[in-house]
Amino acid sequence: MYIEHITSPADIKPMGMDKLEILCDEIRQAILTKLSKFGGHVGPNLGVVELTVAMHYVFNSPVDQIVFDVSHQSYTHKMLTGRYHSFMDGTISGYTNQYESPHDHFIIGHTSTAASLACGLAKARDILKQNHYVIAIIGDGALSGGEAFEGLDNIAEQGSQLIVVINDNDTSIAENHGGLYKNLKELRETKGQASTNYFKSLGLDYHYVDDGNDLEQMITAFQVVKTATRPIVLHVHTKKGKGYAPAESDEEDFHWHIPFDIATGLSQPSSHKSYSELTGEYLLNKITEHSELVIVNAATPGVIGFDPEQRKQAGKQFVDVGIAEEHAVAFCSAIASKGAKPILAIYSTFMQRTYDQLSHDLCLNDNPAVILVFEGGVHGINDATHLGFFDIALTINIPNMVYLAPTGRHEYFNMLDWAINQSSHPTIIRVPSTKVQDYLETLELDYHHPNRYQVTQQGDTVAIIAAGTFYSLGQKVSDQLKTQGITPTLINPRFLSGIDEKLLTDLTKNHQLVITLEDGIVSGGFGEKIAGFYGPTTMKTINFGLPKAYPDRYHVGEYMKSIGLTPEQIVDKINKTLK
Amino acid sequence: MYIEHITSPADIKPMGMDKLEILCDEIRQAILTKLSKFGGHVGPNLGVVELTVAMHYVFNSPVDQIVFDVSHQSYTHKMLTGRYHSFMDGTISGYTNQYESPHDHFIIGHTSTAASLACGLAKARDILKQNHYVIAIIGDGALSGGEAFEGLDNIAEQGSQLIVVINDNDTSIAENHGGLYKNLKELRETKGQASTNYFKSLGLDYHYVDDGNDLEQMITAFQVVKTATRPIVLHVHTKKGKGYAPAESDEEDFHWHIPFDIATGLSQPSSHKSYSELTGEYLLNKITEHSELVIVNAATPGVIGFDPEQRKQAGKQFVDVGIAEEHAVAFCSAIASKGAKPILAIYSTFMQRTYDQLSHDLCLNDNPAVILVFEGGVHGINDATHLGFFDIALTINIPNMVYLAPTGRHEYFNMLDWAINQSSHPTIIRVPSTKVQDYLETLELDYHHPNRYQVTQQGDTVAIIAAGTFYSLGQKVSDQLKTQGITPTLINPRFLSGIDEKLLTDLTKNHQLVITLEDGIVSGGFGEKIAGFYGPTTMKTINFGLPKAYPDRYHVGEYMKSIGLTPEQIVDKINKTLK
Repeated sequence: MYIEHITSPADIKPMGMDKLEILCDEIRQAILTKLSKFGGHVGPNLGVVELTVAMHYVFNSPVDQIVFDVSHQSYTHKMLTGRYHSFMDGTISGYTNQYESPHDHFIIGHTSTAASLACGLAKARDILKQNHYVIAIIGDGALSGGEAFEGLDNIAEQGSQLIVVINDNDTSIAENHGGLYKNLKELRETKGQASTNYFKSLGLDYHYVDDGNDLEQMITAFQVVKTATRPIVLHVHTKKGKGYAPAESDEEDFHWHIPFDIATGLSQPSSHKSYSELTGEYLLNKITEHSELVIVNAATPGVIGFDPEQRKQAGKQFVDVGIAEEHAVAFCSAIASKGAKPILAIYSTFMQRTYDQLSHDLCLNDNPAVILVFEGGVHGINDATHLGFFDIALTINIPNMVYLAPTGRHEYFNMLDWAINQSSHPTIIRVPSTKVQDYLETLELDYHHPNRYQVTQQGDTVAIIAAGTFYSLGQKVSDQLKTQGITPTLINPRFLSGIDEKLLTDLTKNHQLVITLEDGIVSGGFGEKIAGFYGPTTMKTINFGLPKAYPDRYHVGEYMKSIGLTPEQIVDKINKTLK
Repeated sequence: MYIEHITSPADIKPMGMDKLEILCDEIRQAILTKLSKFGGHVGPNLGVVELTVAMHYVFNSPVDQIVFDVSHQSYTHKMLTGRYHSFMDGTISGYTNQYESPHDHFIIGHTSTAASLACGLAKARDILKQNHYVIAIIGDGALSGGEAFEGLDNIAEQGSQLIVVINDNDTSIAENHGGLYKNLKELRETKGQASTNYFKSLGLDYHYVDDGNDLEQMITAFQVVKTATRPIVLHVHTKKGKGYAPAESDEEDFHWHIPFDIATGLSQPSSHKSYSELTGEYLLNKITEHSELVIVNAATPGVIGFDPEQRKQAGKQFVDVGIAEEHAVAFCSAIASKGAKPILAIYSTFMQRTYDQLSHDLCLNDNPAVILVFEGGVHGINDATHLGFFDIALTINIPNMVYLAPTGRHEYFNMLDWAINQSSHPTIIRVPSTKVQDYLETLELDYHHPNRYQVTQQGDTVAIIAAGTFYSLGQKVSDQLKTQGITPTLINPRFLSGIDEKLLTDLTKNHQLVITLEDGIVSGGFGEKIAGFYGPTTMKTINFGLPKAYPDRYHVGEYMKSIGLTPEQIVDKINKTLK
């Protein structure tokens, strides 16, 4: 096998076309072998094998700098840059990482970033009077994100050499959304000749490749755009999932996939329903009763378990805005302002793509949109690029925002009912990222008394305020304290965006210590507000939660132990503080 | 005068063309009279008089819904919707506000929002089965912002009636930047006929008006686009500052202007240099010594006092990316990653337009870009839409970010020198928004000992940690405490993104109370981390700062008093806690 012996892109330069074609087959097979075992981005990587081989054949990485948008399509690049074995055995991540290889320039996992980053690389090159090539590779799905537009717009003005490869496989994670995609279709159908051309309207030169899975075409194309001294778009038509029938026939399912059987493309079905599936079922029912409901999503309909059939069933009451989180939030604010009811479903890590819209467009106007945040906390996605640790600190400090953290299933759907029926404030509900659990039959949520916490166990000396998915951790701490003769008060705060002043004041009568547990960074989060409240009193407090850091691909149990969040470690700290 | 008697747009519908022309003259005069006295957005409003009169003549507000992007060009709209007198006497704000009038639909002050918001209004209309018109008005300068692109892209897909008026006056706040503006120029020069058309590439229909300051042309144009059942762009060429010679000849200066003499266009020059001017002078010097420095700005070069001459002088070492804050931060991250040194100058209120880029693109990659944040805190801009209260809580909780808050001039430039010379972390410096003051000759900043606070007065019992521009407030509190026999320890923390554990631990020896003072929201901010640190100890704490709220057009002294931040109120609270 050639691929096993490639230690750098220099190794492929002497290879003839026949050998390079074999190399492509080997790479495609390696991707399938690896992903069938570990899971990962199947379709995007199968589609760019020839593109990536051709690029490394024509250019001279790492002197020439290549930036992959999202970087979830960088597997071939990793294999060609001395990382075949660590890729195959799963020791390296699926995203680029400059600490892993000089051929990578950024840790990236969020979409629509590569144009801006490449623009900066080219600026650094120009200002430092260097003269290498800079290349950005962006999927068509990423073009709907505002940052991609801003980057392309500025690349054109900057004017110096920069190649933007548009890997157009005619699909986003699910389908593409936005008017722009009609233009891409027109360009594909006319082999790049259509007079209406988005890229040219931004001042960029343009070159089209009809079959991006044809190695020779791709090599020729890169040789052509290499001669450009101004920014140029290389629009390449590829096939997502190329060469693997199950991925070609169900592109959405194989965008990212859990481990699967190569022969059939099938995986072990999950025996339990997830919060996503339960949410999807709930919403599909709800919209038939309530014609004013609009479910909004930004390119990840799987977050509410919606497959194409269910999306069709929801009709006009489901809107996928594409990768465009800023628009999603502003859009919801306006819908909510006029008496219709938007419900935005979004991953925690992508909430941070839209802070200004949450504050200025939504909360300043105090419109009652509902936002469901998925995959937040330590049980969420564990890549450093996609952590769900930050949404609590990011959003509870925004005026008017109501942030609810249910402990389990019943409470979640109670809160969702309540949020849909209220028309007072924007409301976030953090959908648990754990397995579906039933903890509490909650009190009726009552907006006229917001920020009312729920005491689930009356005790003394120590109070445990355990938020959302960390409620179970609070129970375990309580159980251990009981064995040493302390029955702590256990509290489910429910509202993380406010303080229950009466309850907290009452605790001062027969408690010495209040601890907080939250499934997000402590810095700027919920617990610090409790510490601040008790600051002027003699009540002691300890805030437990996640540190301000970007851990990468951690094991939950090991990570929790390393940051002092096992029940034993928490009890130990409580005992030391009580002394 | 007609304008004095107009109580709603219905009043202009019976008026003939001759009377409407007179009305336009009166409005233009009223704008000048008001703004020469109070200051405000001169050029943008003089440019849209005819456009706005024509729109209200043809459509039926508030049944038909009109959204102004930024809403800084809504003065004519305000006068035509029953607010002439309150506009003239300055009792209403310069931005739209739904609590002020049913003709307004949002409180808006940030750019690039109207397309998305109008898209949501149209969705609410469609889902509620209503049938009024929805119209968005966006300036050409706002089109470079990602949210505007995302909105336009989704309007096209939504497909139902929506008119997007592009008020093209060929300028942003300063000049336009980005490749897109070449296309707008081409469209103006061909009277809308150029084959390359940005709006059409997004799937939008298109209509062009050559003289947007001609009332009859504008009325006809609105009558034409009113018949469209699909989304359509009405591209209108107007003259910024139309009808007032000083504003026509210096569009940038008169975009927003302090009070001025109508006859000459001149204002009282400021007798003191501002931090902006001092920063500009410093940077102009610095870049001549350091060819690797790149000053980056997003459409507000005035923030560093750069006039067109100075921008020219800075050459390739100054980049204005246009209204595109997301790109600005990603761009800086990439520049910093390769050994050049970007310095981004930005208003506090616009920092929040780019959170994901600060975290994912910049801090995750830990690239040493420098960011200067202007107009933060209570002395910054006092419109609810532009408050500088949030940047501390927004950014100090991001891993790897170093946040420095200088107390005055010497310290600011010391910190800036240090930030430029270090290559370890992204660094924010919060430029004071007060008048230029000299407080402290600081210790040498030492990166190898980050988060080291500075004790400026050694005392006991009470310690005052007074951050940035609130250092002077800390001094006043200290002075008052001294009169009652307590000499407090006074501390300038300098670093707001970390804790000086040693210093704080030392304070426990002979202090009972630590108070924090910060010029930003307490919720999620610096002080709560101090409270959290002392939580497990017997040290008492009080966090002083701004509440989580959006106050509007407040008087600084009155606001500070209303939130308990006068020295007397603070001392009172200290005394009550010490008891």
